[in-house]
Amino acid sequence: VISFARGAPAPECLAVELIAACARDAVERDGTTVLSYGPVGGYAPLREWIADRHAVDPKRVLLTNGSLQGVQFLLELLLSHGPALVEAPTYDRPLKQLAWHASDVETMPVDEEGLDVDALDSYLEHGRMPGLVYTIPTFQNPSGRTLSLERRRRLAQHAVDGLLVLEDDPYGLVRYEGEALPSIFELANGTNVIYSSSFSKTISPGLRVGYFVLPEELATRVEEIAVSTYITPALLSQATVMEFIRQGHFEPNLERIRGLLKVRRDAMLAALERELGGRATWSRPEGGYFLWIDLPVDTGALLARAEAMGVTFVRGSDFFYDGGGERSARLAFSFASPSEIDEGISVLSALLRA
Amino acid sequence: VISFARGAPAPECLAVELIAACARDAVERDGTTVLSYGPVGGYAPLREWIADRHAVDPKRVLLTNGSLQGVQFLLELLLSHGPALVEAPTYDRPLKQLAWHASDVETMPVDEEGLDVDALDSYLEHGRMPGLVYTIPTFQNPSGRTLSLERRRRLAQHAVDGLLVLEDDPYGLVRYEGEALPSIFELANGTNVIYSSSFSKTISPGLRVGYFVLPEELATRVEEIAVSTYITPALLSQATVMEFIRQGHFEPNLERIRGLLKVRRDAMLAALERELGGRATWSRPEGGYFLWIDLPVDTGALLARAEAMGVTFVRGSDFFYDGGGERSARLAFSFASPSEIDEGISVLSALLRA
Repeated sequence: VISFARGAPAPECLAVELIAACARDAVERDGTTVLSYGPVGGYAPLREWIADRHAVDPKRVLLTNGSLQGVQFLLELLLSHGPALVEAPTYDRPLKQLAWHASDVETMPVDEEGLDVDALDSYLEHGRMPGLVYTIPTFQNPSGRTLSLERRRRLAQHAVDGLLVLEDDPYGLVRYEGEALPSIFELANGTNVIYSSSFSKTISPGLRVGYFVLPEELATRVEEIAVSTYITPALLSQATVMEFIRQGHFEPNLERIRGLLKVRRDAMLAALERELGGRATWSRPEGGYFLWIDLPVDTGALLARAEAMGVTFVRGSDFFYDGGGERSARLAFSFASPSEIDEGISVLSALLRA
Repeated sequence: VISFARGAPAPECLAVELIAACARDAVERDGTTVLSYGPVGGYAPLREWIADRHAVDPKRVLLTNGSLQGVQFLLELLLSHGPALVEAPTYDRPLKQLAWHASDVETMPVDEEGLDVDALDSYLEHGRMPGLVYTIPTFQNPSGRTLSLERRRRLAQHAVDGLLVLEDDPYGLVRYEGEALPSIFELANGTNVIYSSSFSKTISPGLRVGYFVLPEELATRVEEIAVSTYITPALLSQATVMEFIRQGHFEPNLERIRGLLKVRRDAMLAALERELGGRATWSRPEGGYFLWIDLPVDTGALLARAEAMGVTFVRGSDFFYDGGGERSARLAFSFASPSEIDEGISVLSALLRA
C-alpha cells in the first residue's frame, strides 16, 4: 500500500539509536523523579526549556500525552461559554471530540491565505463571542495552508480584544523553505492565546509529548482536570525528549527531518504537475506533512477505486464539520518514499483519466 | 516531612538501572514501532502478554496512560444507563471524575470483609440497576481491606446475572503474606466484569502503564473514545515494561518490592500497637500500600496539627462521596522508611494524648 493517508513521519525520520540512548540516559540521570508520580504539568526540566523558548513562567506550560489530549481538556473547560469556532476544513480529530461532547460548533472558511478573517470579523460584528477559536495557522492539517502575516495581525488583535484563540502549531518548525512568520501567540504577546505544539513532528510521535502555553489562570484549571484524568503524564517520554535536547540532538535532527521531508514534498509537487497539471489544483506548502487537492470528481468514490489499486488518501469531507470537501482530498507526503509518491500519483492520475 | 499521605512506592522500590537499560533495549529492539503512532489499544507484545495471563483475546486488552485514564473513559461511556455504585470509602480520584461529570452516584458501605454485599443485594432487590459497580476488592485504597471469598462469589454471581462490575486491582500482586483470592473476573469467567490493573505498583508509576480487560464489544467502544482523546498511548513506556518482562525482571523485582514494603507495613503495625493500642482501631492488610485507622478525634483537625509537626496523612472524609470518615484516616506505609514510620506514628500518638 502507498499511503498518502498517514499523517506520520517516514520511518527514517526517527532517530532510533539516539532516542534509545537518550531514554536510558534520562532514567540514569534522574530515575527516581522520572519513574515516580510527579507534577501533573509534566517533567520540570522540559517545562522550563519550553517556558524559556516562549518567554513565559514555567507554571504556564503544561505537557500532555500528545497535544490532542490537551485540546480535549480545553474543549471540556471552555465551551460552556460559547461555541467552538473552527476552520473549514480542519484537523478531523478535534471535530470528533466536539461531536462527542455535543458542543456548539461554528465553521469559518479557509482560503489560500488560511483562515478567512473577514468571515471572522463578520461573525464577531454581530456581537457573538465563541468560547474558543481553534486554528492551525501554519502548514495547516489538512490544507497545508499558512495564515498570512496581515491576517495573523488581525487575529492577534481580536485576541487582545478578548477573543480566546487556541493556536495549534505542531508543524511550524518543519519548514522546508521561506521565512517563518510570527505566531499569533507572539503577535498578541500571549494575551488570550493558547499556544499548542508537540515533539511528534520534531522527534517522534510514539513518545506522545505535547505541550500547551496557557494563561496562568487557565493553566490551573487545566491542571485540575488533568490530575483527575491521569495523575501524571508519561514522564519517561518527556525526560527522553529533554535528554535529546540536552545532548544537542534537537536542531541537527530537525535539520535532517526537514531534508528527508522536503524531498518528499518536492516529489509530490513534481508528480502532480506532471500527471495532473491543468486537471486539478493543489496547495504548495512550504512545510508540514500535507497538501490539499481539488479534483473534478467525488473523492469518496475515487478513494474506493484507489484503495483497490493500493493507494490511500483521506477524502476532503472528513475535515468539514458540516459538509464540504466532497471533491477535495488531503494528500500526506510525509510517510511514503519519493518513488512511492511518484507511483501513487501516477495511479491516481490514471484513475482520473479512466 | 514524614509522609503517610503519598500512595507511592519508596524510591528504593524503583529498579532504576534495570529500567534504564530496558528503555534503551526496547527502542533498539523495535524502534520504528515504538516511536511511531500505533494502535490505540497500546503496544501489541504487552497486550498479548496480558491477554495470555488473563486467558482472553488480545483485542480485549487495552493499555492506557495509567489506569485512571481508562476509568474515566468507562465512566463517560457507561453512566448514561444508571448511577455509579461505589464503595464508601473508596479511591478519591474516581469520585472527583464522577463529580466532574455530574454523574449519579450511590454508595455502599465497606466493612472488615470489604464491600458489604448484603447492602448490594438490598439495592438490587428493589429492581434498581446501576450503570457500573466500581470496586477495589484487594488491599483496597483507602482501607487496605480485602473482599472475602464468599462475598467475591456473590458479587461474581451478580455479574453473571447482568450487573456490570469494574474490578480495580492495582495492588493484588503486592501481597506480603497469605493466599491470593480469585478475582471477581475469574469467578465470573469474565462475564460483565471489567478487570483493571497497572504496572505502577509492580514496576514504576512514572511509566503510566495501566490496563483493562474488557468485554469485546465494550473494548471497541472504549477504543473509539481513546483514539479521539490521544490517538495512541505512550508507547515507549509500554515497550519498556515489555522489555522488563522479556528480560526476566518482573517476578524477581516484584519479590524485592514485596520485601521492601512488608518491612514498612510491619513497622507501621508495630508502631501503632505500641503507641495507640487500646486507643484506636486499624485494619491489618496482607498487602498493598495503605491501612485505615479509626480514631477518637476529628482527623481534619488532627491533620492540621500533624502537618505542623512534619507528618502528613489523608483524612478519611476525602474518600467518601457523601459524608463519613470524619474520625478516620488513610495511612500509607509505602513511601516512608521504617524509621520514619516509627517516628511519625509517635508524633501522631503524642498529638492524640495532648
